[in-house]
Amino acid sequence: MEKHIALGDILKMEPAYRRNLMNSISGFKACNLIGTASYRKVANVAIFNSVVHIGATPPLLGFVMRPLTVPRQTYHNIRARGFFTVNAVTKNFYERAHQTSAKYAEDTSEFEACGLTPQYTETHPAPYVGESPVKLGLQFEEEHHIRANGTIFIIGKVVEVLFDDSLLAPDGHLNLVQAGVLAVGGLDSYFEPELLGRLGYARP
Amino acid sequence: MEKHIALGDILKMEPAYRRNLMNSISGFKACNLIGTASYRKVANVAIFNSVVHIGATPPLLGFVMRPLTVPRQTYHNIRARGFFTVNAVTKNFYERAHQTSAKYAEDTSEFEACGLTPQYTETHPAPYVGESPVKLGLQFEEEHHIRANGTIFIIGKVVEVLFDDSLLAPDGHLNLVQAGVLAVGGLDSYFEPELLGRLGYARP
Repeated sequence: MEKHIALGDILKMEPAYRRNLMNSISGFKACNLIGTASYRKVANVAIFNSVVHIGATPPLLGFVMRPLTVPRQTYHNIRARGFFTVNAVTKNFYERAHQTSAKYAEDTSEFEACGLTPQYTETHPAPYVGESPVKLGLQFEEEHHIRANGTIFIIGKVVEVLFDDSLLAPDGHLNLVQAGVLAVGGLDSYFEPELLGRLGYARP
Repeated sequence: MEKHIALGDILKMEPAYRRNLMNSISGFKACNLIGTASYRKVANVAIFNSVVHIGATPPLLGFVMRPLTVPRQTYHNIRARGFFTVNAVTKNFYERAHQTSAKYAEDTSEFEACGLTPQYTETHPAPYVGESPVKLGLQFEEEHHIRANGTIFIIGKVVEVLFDDSLLAPDGHLNLVQAGVLAVGGLDSYFEPELLGRLGYARP
């Protein structure tokens, strides 16, 4: 039986219930850790499920940052230093990745607190997550403030990518299933995707 | 063996190869059909893999629209009419959903051309996809032009949701696996997610 729910009824829902519904209703989401370093070089890492592809030439990604109503270490570090990393989360360390969503004190490194390994290259100032098989180094490009609710859409340019050789197909695709990369549903459910089918370029 | 690739080398890649790499590298993506109606009431539907959660109160979603270098029916209709729908894609009709990415003539309805069923409610002017078990009716809220590459980030407010009763858990979560909802990897690979684990609210 198809249920119809209008905006007025959505707004009357209990907040946690509405949050669960609205976070699950848009579908599966990418599961990434974003790494940054503070001015005083404390390595910060936090889980995000809003990373989206913006373009390939130049390579650009975006993600949604919650409103700045409380201090947001990731935002602060990106604006202070101009760089961040995006690291795919796999089944091997998803519990530790989830734990980064806890509210740690400002001078605590979530890498240490959650048992994750910061990894640096000589060419990028933000920390990668050593456990991740697909790591992207980005340079801050622009930000857009969403008037409707105060969230911020951050755009970064990919300036470096690190991944295991064996994941790369001859056509440029990365084998995310082989890498054990997960998807997220709702706020806290982690999923293992399995390939159903690959379809060709569609023509009328 | 971990491969390091710098921006200069990414930009030197063959375009299709770079597109495959950059579309797969950010992780799994939501798989949705966006429905709109033109001023002359032609029902348009197109597949998007960039829908992200923006907020629950009010309920907001965003998605990325490619640059307006060619006519973009979805964009035109959203701005002309102010409404659109977001419909989850399932394994039952993903080939038809993928086919909507073909370039049809402006006066062609992709619903007809691809064998999908437009579904209307009395309360929302844009067409839903009848085959989809999770349908959202949205009102255009705002748009942000990404300076870095000319893409547009569109924000809509959810004003109506339609889904089968049986998918709703007591806590407000929708069971996307039971609904057969898919995720996308790269540009053209469709995945069935399976639940690995659900984790509680993280505390330090």
